[in-house]
Amino acid sequence: MHFTSESSADGVTRRHFTLDGVPGVLWRPDGPPLGGRPLVLLGHGGGGHKLGPGVVDRADRCVRRHGFAAVALDAPGHGERARSAQDERFATEIGELLAAGRPISAWVARHTAALAERAVPEWVAVLDALEAAEADGGRVGGLGPVGFWGLSLGSVIGIPLAAAEPRIAAAVFGLTGHASQTEAAARVGVPVEFLLQWDDELVPREGALALFGALGSSEKTLHANPGGHVDVPELELESSERFLARHLLRAE
Amino acid sequence: MHFTSESSADGVTRRHFTLDGVPGVLWRPDGPPLGGRPLVLLGHGGGGHKLGPGVVDRADRCVRRHGFAAVALDAPGHGERARSAQDERFATEIGELLAAGRPISAWVARHTAALAERAVPEWVAVLDALEAAEADGGRVGGLGPVGFWGLSLGSVIGIPLAAAEPRIAAAVFGLTGHASQTEAAARVGVPVEFLLQWDDELVPREGALALFGALGSSEKTLHANPGGHVDVPELELESSERFLARHLLRAE
Repeated sequence: MHFTSESSADGVTRRHFTLDGVPGVLWRPDGPPLGGRPLVLLGHGGGGHKLGPGVVDRADRCVRRHGFAAVALDAPGHGERARSAQDERFATEIGELLAAGRPISAWVARHTAALAERAVPEWVAVLDALEAAEADGGRVGGLGPVGFWGLSLGSVIGIPLAAAEPRIAAAVFGLTGHASQTEAAARVGVPVEFLLQWDDELVPREGALALFGALGSSEKTLHANPGGHVDVPELELESSERFLARHLLRAE
Repeated sequence: MHFTSESSADGVTRRHFTLDGVPGVLWRPDGPPLGGRPLVLLGHGGGGHKLGPGVVDRADRCVRRHGFAAVALDAPGHGERARSAQDERFATEIGELLAAGRPISAWVARHTAALAERAVPEWVAVLDALEAAEADGGRVGGLGPVGFWGLSLGSVIGIPLAAAEPRIAAAVFGLTGHASQTEAAARVGVPVEFLLQWDDELVPREGALALFGALGSSEKTLHANPGGHVDVPELELESSERFLARHLLRAE
């Protein structure tokens, strides 16, 4: 893990890093290193990146309101990362299919599942590196309880990540739902808050409901609201923040 | 409206009343009358009554935490009210049907719809009487923004009530869902928080989802959690309390 730059504003330190070619950002309160404080992994949506406005806003809230740390990565084919020919094709074709009013759910599921296969080990490696940083006497230091927050593509990656990664103690998922995700969902055991948009033009309602049902967690809650894929109400962002704070503080 | 008794404990005044033979209870902070403060109508579930533990607990919270007033009535055939032969039959048969593992949804919907037809005008009359009490120089006085909180039978009554009664500004519904409720649901326009139990043994999941979808409100939110009909998590009761407080304070 190579830290490439560091800045600070309004009490929030922002450190850019790369790990095996994956660019990421760590946010934490100014001053001492992680020191066992809760850490929230922020997964961006399809077409977004680690410094998209929603990601930065949530990172700022994690740090300022709760004193947590937060980390975001560019998903494969996103942000500063090179796009493969397949990524380019996907970005072009999704617009064409949507414009033509064709169903895209299975096609999106196939492409994003391939991204998730690459992204899950990248997140695990970042957790390993952050955990090791303290032993190195580094400035990051010390992994506390870990939460995951990511909708849409963020959940396509986050669900198999939470299924595989025992350091994750609670997760916010949503805006996704395809049969190909069922098996991983069943292996998720931690508390989940799952967001569904009732009129989601990209995710069939039945698929999202079935995915919520498939989650293996005994403690899980579904919040559904009217509106399309990008219309998640502000109140739900606050609710998911409360949800993570509650579980991560409990896990400390 | 005849007030039959009054008591006070821990800052909460409790006043029993009857109106045209319907027994009810009004809770409010000790001291001055309603005086325009928000009022929450509490609808109990099937087999419950106006002083059931859940109702009293919610009334206490309305008063102590928020300074609101609250009112509960015995639904037709419940609590202190006489049971008709049909009510008696219902109470006997529901146990037999459940024990036999037979589907009860349509049968419950038919019986509770008949109760709702009687209960809706009773709630309207109580609101009229509370509103009039101030003009009479009475001790109750002054109707502020009105919220409704009621699950299961409470919602079977509350949905047509909220459809018909413009004084209701926000409502918490849930644990119900039958096609016979669709038409009234479509006429509800106020913000709704709707609770669904994912493994509800009394209410088919599809019916509850369809009823949420049918609500005419542009601002509505569905909260679903694992567990059976009576397993609504404590956190959801707190969420629904926050929801009502937010909307009733905004409506003041």
